[in-house]
Amino acid sequence: MRTELSNRLGIEYAVFGFTPFPAVAAAISRAGGLGVLGAVRYGAPGELARDLDWLDAHCAGRPYGLDVVMPARKVEGVSVADIEAMIPEGHRKFVRETLAEHGVPELADGEESGWRITGWLEEVARSQLDVAFDHPVALLANALGPPPPDVVRRAREHGVLTAALAGSARHAVRHRDAGIDIVVAQGYEAGGHTGEITTMVLTPEVVRAVDPLPVLAAGGIGTGEQIAAGLALGAQGVWLGSVWLTTTEAELHSAALTRKLLAAGSGDTVRSRALTGKPARQLRTVWTDAWDAAGTPDPLPMPLQGMLVAEAVSRIQKYEVEPLLGTPVGQIVGQLDRERPVQAVFDDLTRGFERAMARLSRIAARD
Amino acid sequence: MRTELSNRLGIEYAVFGFTPFPAVAAAISRAGGLGVLGAVRYGAPGELARDLDWLDAHCAGRPYGLDVVMPARKVEGVSVADIEAMIPEGHRKFVRETLAEHGVPELADGEESGWRITGWLEEVARSQLDVAFDHPVALLANALGPPPPDVVRRAREHGVLTAALAGSARHAVRHRDAGIDIVVAQGYEAGGHTGEITTMVLTPEVVRAVDPLPVLAAGGIGTGEQIAAGLALGAQGVWLGSVWLTTTEAELHSAALTRKLLAAGSGDTVRSRALTGKPARQLRTVWTDAWDAAGTPDPLPMPLQGMLVAEAVSRIQKYEVEPLLGTPVGQIVGQLDRERPVQAVFDDLTRGFERAMARLSRIAARD
Repeated sequence: MRTELSNRLGIEYAVFGFTPFPAVAAAISRAGGLGVLGAVRYGAPGELARDLDWLDAHCAGRPYGLDVVMPARKVEGVSVADIEAMIPEGHRKFVRETLAEHGVPELADGEESGWRITGWLEEVARSQLDVAFDHPVALLANALGPPPPDVVRRAREHGVLTAALAGSARHAVRHRDAGIDIVVAQGYEAGGHTGEITTMVLTPEVVRAVDPLPVLAAGGIGTGEQIAAGLALGAQGVWLGSVWLTTTEAELHSAALTRKLLAAGSGDTVRSRALTGKPARQLRTVWTDAWDAAGTPDPLPMPLQGMLVAEAVSRIQKYEVEPLLGTPVGQIVGQLDRERPVQAVFDDLTRGFERAMARLSRIAARD
Repeated sequence: MRTELSNRLGIEYAVFGFTPFPAVAAAISRAGGLGVLGAVRYGAPGELARDLDWLDAHCAGRPYGLDVVMPARKVEGVSVADIEAMIPEGHRKFVRETLAEHGVPELADGEESGWRITGWLEEVARSQLDVAFDHPVALLANALGPPPPDVVRRAREHGVLTAALAGSARHAVRHRDAGIDIVVAQGYEAGGHTGEITTMVLTPEVVRAVDPLPVLAAGGIGTGEQIAAGLALGAQGVWLGSVWLTTTEAELHSAALTRKLLAAGSGDTVRSRALTGKPARQLRTVWTDAWDAAGTPDPLPMPLQGMLVAEAVSRIQKYEVEPLLGTPVGQIVGQLDRERPVQAVFDDLTRGFERAMARLSRIAARD
């Protein structure tokens, strides 16, 4: 399963695996795909440097990528405290009351919130980039549109390919014009931030819009058959995130969350602004239902909502308050039915792809 | 492009084309697919008999299908007038005022509303079936779940295959248990009634759930590349509706609506209950926006909503009030950019499929 793009990156399979867990990223790269580590939850640059060092030692010399969240427009002279101060008290009250209503315990005095999404901050993302360019990162992806022009230039100087996620052809063209090398077309069914257009429609639309730039199909892909479908749509590779969440290497730190993921059906996700302020697909929970209910506050715009709920998410996770426990995940969550090593998942992907190709060839050959 | 199912039906391509227009259905069947005529807008059985006679004369001996809308559960002793009486006056007032606000002219005295969706009524659907079984209909599809048991039996006696649309694996299993021969897995991106699960995720889920029953992939399919994707997902055929709307054989009777379809992007549809009472994807218009606006009445349940808006839709269409003019259509509307004969569309589908297969084979072969 090779394409021009996979050849350019020197990987055996055109399978890009996004994950917040270094052990998963390394296993994906070792299996022949490209593991892409999500950096959004890293705070201090030292933590990221430590994990990239670890990746260097555990990828068996295979390439890997890094996914940062860097807004294209910089807001000058605004501190985290300035932004925190913009959160209305009514919203804080709603969070406090919802947590209390469901018996979510408080963190201990002085205990830090483990769940963070401060990676989107310009200063944090910049320091992450300094770390990234000190490591043999093969691909630099940006989950929030194209990186700023100087970052694209710097990546090019370092021989690092850049990718950006797009939920519409219009966004994809904007990314191309910003000098991006690869567009990830992220369909409605994907986990995390998504638009309204599904992978089936979005992929070929983006392929046409940015041709000859390579496009990765993202959203709704968790089997080899779905990989074949994504490639049939003109993509030069596929971008998978949800399928790795229930691998044995994933460090969810929550048996309850793993159980929920394995039990969930394809209809058990919701596209909600409750997590970050932008529509993001995630497990539907009592927590997302609370934000969707009539008469409750509307989620705040990004980045306020993420800051507002960071501690709440942390507490829900730490104490495994099952009804409220969630995670970004796509509609393929319905296909996840057991914990397995990354290599076993990867073997299924390649075998499923071969099976789909054999069946398709028979259908095409009949006359 | 043959599958077990297409062989069983004696068609050259596993392409099922749903359309409300006899001329389009005939052209699809002549091109080597299976034209499936939608019967929901037919009232008197005589009209349907006339059009099926016409199909018999214009399909060049190729098979065709019929799509009825028949609720599995019968409501005894309820007349159209009884149901009409259940529509609240507040809803009627909102319709009157919205039409007046946008200057939609009234029908002439005694003029009948041309747009109807009375086909869902048990009595109407039953009389349609009597007509259907008098014609060489090869496939009987039902857009509202499985037909009643006696209809399934009757179809079997006549050697007519039955199909039912499903938006979830649960519904698909219910259809199978009712004795249906084929499940049409209708994804979120499809035009008309849809669920939340996209074609990429729904198709393989339904294939697994009803195996070995054949499944058709529906939603997001308007090119040969998308056909290849649908078949890669395990479908034994694809079900296309939107792509025929801008063919020269389509009798939209509205140049303005054709213009709107050709101009629309993939993001210009909305899944709304405004048309029938169940979520149905359609062009987003001033009319659907009015129903979605805060402080306006919620659409009524099916069948009340369809009855409530029938005359309004008829007036909007007759007078071509462009801002309000819409139609059920899927997200592939963004791909429709010119009027063409059905045969030209069909040629593109088969050529695109071959192109996708050639590209996929190259990707699979590289090692």
